[in-house]
Amino acid sequence: MVESDSKLSVTYYGDNTEVLGKAVLHLTAIEVSLDVDADRDGVVEKNNPHKGAWTWGPEGHGAILLVNCDSEQFYHKTPDSDRKHITAVSDLNDMSPMVLRTKGPAQLPPGYKLTLHISRGDAEKVRVFFPDFVKRYPLVLDDQVLSQEVPYQEETKLYVEGLRFPDKDFDGLLKIHLSLLEPISEDFPETPIYTDTVVFRVAPWIMTPNTLEPVEVFVCSTKDNYPFLKGITGLAKKNNYKLKVCYEYKNRGDRWMQDELEFGYIDSPHQHFPVVLDSPRDGDLKDFPYDELLGKDFGYVTRVPEDEEVNSLDSFGNLEVSPPVTVNGKHYPLGRIIIGVAFPTSAHGRNMTKVVQDFLWAQKVQEPVALFSDWLYVGHVDEFMTFVPAPGQRRLEMLKHFLNEIDNLSLIYHLLHTYLSVCYKLFKGLQNDGHGKAKIFDGLGPDEEISVDEILDNERLKSENDYVQNCIDWNRDVLKRELGLDDDDIIDLPILFKLMEDNRAVAYYPDMVNMIVLGKELGIPKPFGPKVDGRCALEAEMTSLMEALGLNCTYIDNFASYHKLLGEVHCGSNVRRKPFELRWWNLEM
Amino acid sequence: MVESDSKLSVTYYGDNTEVLGKAVLHLTAIEVSLDVDADRDGVVEKNNPHKGAWTWGPEGHGAILLVNCDSEQFYHKTPDSDRKHITAVSDLNDMSPMVLRTKGPAQLPPGYKLTLHISRGDAEKVRVFFPDFVKRYPLVLDDQVLSQEVPYQEETKLYVEGLRFPDKDFDGLLKIHLSLLEPISEDFPETPIYTDTVVFRVAPWIMTPNTLEPVEVFVCSTKDNYPFLKGITGLAKKNNYKLKVCYEYKNRGDRWMQDELEFGYIDSPHQHFPVVLDSPRDGDLKDFPYDELLGKDFGYVTRVPEDEEVNSLDSFGNLEVSPPVTVNGKHYPLGRIIIGVAFPTSAHGRNMTKVVQDFLWAQKVQEPVALFSDWLYVGHVDEFMTFVPAPGQRRLEMLKHFLNEIDNLSLIYHLLHTYLSVCYKLFKGLQNDGHGKAKIFDGLGPDEEISVDEILDNERLKSENDYVQNCIDWNRDVLKRELGLDDDDIIDLPILFKLMEDNRAVAYYPDMVNMIVLGKELGIPKPFGPKVDGRCALEAEMTSLMEALGLNCTYIDNFASYHKLLGEVHCGSNVRRKPFELRWWNLEM
Repeated sequence: MVESDSKLSVTYYGDNTEVLGKAVLHLTAIEVSLDVDADRDGVVEKNNPHKGAWTWGPEGHGAILLVNCDSEQFYHKTPDSDRKHITAVSDLNDMSPMVLRTKGPAQLPPGYKLTLHISRGDAEKVRVFFPDFVKRYPLVLDDQVLSQEVPYQEETKLYVEGLRFPDKDFDGLLKIHLSLLEPISEDFPETPIYTDTVVFRVAPWIMTPNTLEPVEVFVCSTKDNYPFLKGITGLAKKNNYKLKVCYEYKNRGDRWMQDELEFGYIDSPHQHFPVVLDSPRDGDLKDFPYDELLGKDFGYVTRVPEDEEVNSLDSFGNLEVSPPVTVNGKHYPLGRIIIGVAFPTSAHGRNMTKVVQDFLWAQKVQEPVALFSDWLYVGHVDEFMTFVPAPGQRRLEMLKHFLNEIDNLSLIYHLLHTYLSVCYKLFKGLQNDGHGKAKIFDGLGPDEEISVDEILDNERLKSENDYVQNCIDWNRDVLKRELGLDDDDIIDLPILFKLMEDNRAVAYYPDMVNMIVLGKELGIPKPFGPKVDGRCALEAEMTSLMEALGLNCTYIDNFASYHKLLGEVHCGSNVRRKPFELRWWNLEM
Repeated sequence: MVESDSKLSVTYYGDNTEVLGKAVLHLTAIEVSLDVDADRDGVVEKNNPHKGAWTWGPEGHGAILLVNCDSEQFYHKTPDSDRKHITAVSDLNDMSPMVLRTKGPAQLPPGYKLTLHISRGDAEKVRVFFPDFVKRYPLVLDDQVLSQEVPYQEETKLYVEGLRFPDKDFDGLLKIHLSLLEPISEDFPETPIYTDTVVFRVAPWIMTPNTLEPVEVFVCSTKDNYPFLKGITGLAKKNNYKLKVCYEYKNRGDRWMQDELEFGYIDSPHQHFPVVLDSPRDGDLKDFPYDELLGKDFGYVTRVPEDEEVNSLDSFGNLEVSPPVTVNGKHYPLGRIIIGVAFPTSAHGRNMTKVVQDFLWAQKVQEPVALFSDWLYVGHVDEFMTFVPAPGQRRLEMLKHFLNEIDNLSLIYHLLHTYLSVCYKLFKGLQNDGHGKAKIFDGLGPDEEISVDEILDNERLKSENDYVQNCIDWNRDVLKRELGLDDDDIIDLPILFKLMEDNRAVAYYPDMVNMIVLGKELGIPKPFGPKVDGRCALEAEMTSLMEALGLNCTYIDNFASYHKLLGEVHCGSNVRRKPFELRWWNLEM
């Protein structure tokens, strides 16, 4: 017979229903729950039944954690995750809220305890803080304290801080447990009688393709790059994008803004911010990402090999990302990362260092594609390909989408690809039309100038470009296969290469594919091609191809200050872009 | 106009259809294909369209590779994978066949080459051999040779050898590529114009639960274990199982056959064999797995921590596997591995070493469950649980299966679990019936004997067992949750524990759950319980519980030679069993 929720009275009867005895059983019901935002709406709900498991997709569940890799402090800064204490209340915004809720008697029975705990493996990847009554945030759990008693009170708000990005040895999943411990007697250890578990996935680092809207353009100022700087500044201003110039005192002549860093971001239901991936390249620009970018709500991450030399393939001109693609029915709505490595058939090629490759693959949501870039002297994928939006085709695209006929998003952009025979064909056309004497590098001085006839007569150059074409065709096949592209999705640009002493290739004239893409505006290396009726034939061809896509071309003179140093506009610039509207946890993996 | 398959004649006409010229184009079509058993029927098919990707399930595809961890050689033996050459033709049976097929002209055009290649990352996990005309098997690819030219001939049979099991840093997948290289001119490197890729998954190491049929029983012979040896020998002979006795000169007194090793197997469509996992425990039995088990078609693998001390939880009495289970709709048709670790709430407990845990988790097909075993002095899961088949229920099971009502296979076995109150209840029953003076350890000498009354009066013992019960209840909850068991699936056995000085528990009398399971025959530690009418009350209870399941009990006296040394029948024996009929690649993962 139940007397109340917490008391049970038991009456013992004899055979003749006489009462033999009475007993009262006191019940203590204690409800404890560790709560997180398992449904990913930005709010911590109450005891979500799915909080202990993590699944992908719009119907998925499981909480999300950011690596707290920005810096709340301006002076003596360091990523917040490197500090064991909280320096500013705003830092809590970068952490995931977690609530410990209890229901039951005003106090736990004597000897009972609530304990929060993590495994040794997880302890190096996560910290838990909680605010005490004086609004300080003491550490509850970290790599030194794997288990700690927490107060028994109706509601305790806690904050969970992520410390490490997913990597080769870390799938991104972390668990935090709450246990109610029961004492047996003073002589023995307490034993858990109930454990509640929540799971977090650390948000991946996500790259932003050229099709996303720019926010800020980055370039270096050097003694000799005025025409370039003027060109880029004009483009940025035209669209009201922010422009950040890194001056000589900081860049020390290192102008390769593309190569030192890659912009990306991290995202969660409660917070998101940009994160720069610092290349292990470490030229004279090496302090720029840490000194100038790391800051409040601007994160920083790097991967540096321990016992391996870095090489030119470790520069981030060799790290790009495609727009969204669908490949054989498999969707990559955040695109696919593209890197360049050595030919698989070659045992002695240069490669991107393993720690960076491992990091990129471990992010999972933009599964990388490896191209062959070691055939190039500098060895960067941005020397022979880029992606441009195709705004003119977007309406068609929308229509197809409504008709449910679309199975590839690739129509909203095009892959631009160098293609040598396009150049030879164009030059032969000029020759046939009587322009064989027209000069490349016209006006750049007699040492540079060379006629169309001379180029077409150069057998050695022709055979070098036959070789290069083979290398490019290989990559074209890989891109078609791995990005699900048709020939129609690829636009071939007229480029010419020449080989250096080690049989590796460099652009013969400014490499137009190495452009900056700012919405509909393209900043293209001025090719200094042969002139017909006063107009550069290469520019004319390029402009005609791009205008058909609804894009505007601006040709930027980077001949002396970049091209002669084996780079172009793209190598010398960088763009921070808006994040994807699609949230990564909604991917179906 | 096509003249033949390999010649195209082109005629140029003028406006008035007059012939302007003629040209003949010579076409060379070369078909190359790297073929494997991608459909897993034991035969290498021709150019399977799915050979380049690996998927799970009955409809899955992708080839399978064994770690060549047995030893063809009897003298100076070592796992074959540790040798760079093939010592016996029979070794080819342990490798996966791969065929390079070509079709086209009798010879490749001048300068063209076929090359087989692997990535640097894969090179430490795989080797490729091929037989040349004198029937020797030279190495084609290994960690020193990542790329090698292979002959252009109609059919070349190759053999692929696996070297490493899946582990924390290796998901088990490997790729081998074949490329056709085209020369441009002597001055430049050749470039691949076509690449064919095959993928292999290295077969996981699979454990065999008690419900699988025994093949061979393993025990040690020591100076003092005659009654035990006789009992086990009798059981094995009764069922015609092979018996392997490890004699004193080899075991040097180390009798814990369960703890030094775990039997498992590896399986592929073309070959399968048992593989022993050698424990890092390394007692005096440490050479037994390598010296006595490793051999032709008997593999060997071990994992030893580099800078960590091993402890008692690293013995393989602490490594078991459940029969097939279904948990919340998720099937584990090969069961789940069970290990024992420290309480998650405890920061200072003993754990199974990380390298062994990593290995077990990486096998994937028997996803492990971690129980809490650190509360035990010896710390092994086999001290408080085991699985027995339930042959009497199998017909019911089959019926349910036909009716398609079954969603848990657990009915074909039962989890046996120690349960202390069962023992106290049984002893109180004896006391009430006037048998309080009956003695445990009756006949084992006055130092050992103790009466039922004395045990029930021992308050300290009672409180120790209250603590132990809490530890066991925790494990019971975990097992129910992680194996999808009902209370009906669990049979509680009467066991009593006592605590040692460090508050860790040992069995008070021989721990009946620590039994050997050989089909329907159970070899159970003789408990030496209190006698009623000349019959041991504990044996009577145990026999009654087991007979209800259709199982036969044999009680084996291991009191002096095992129990007093803190182990029992299971700790002192091991059983090699038949593999699962279900092939692991048919799992839906």
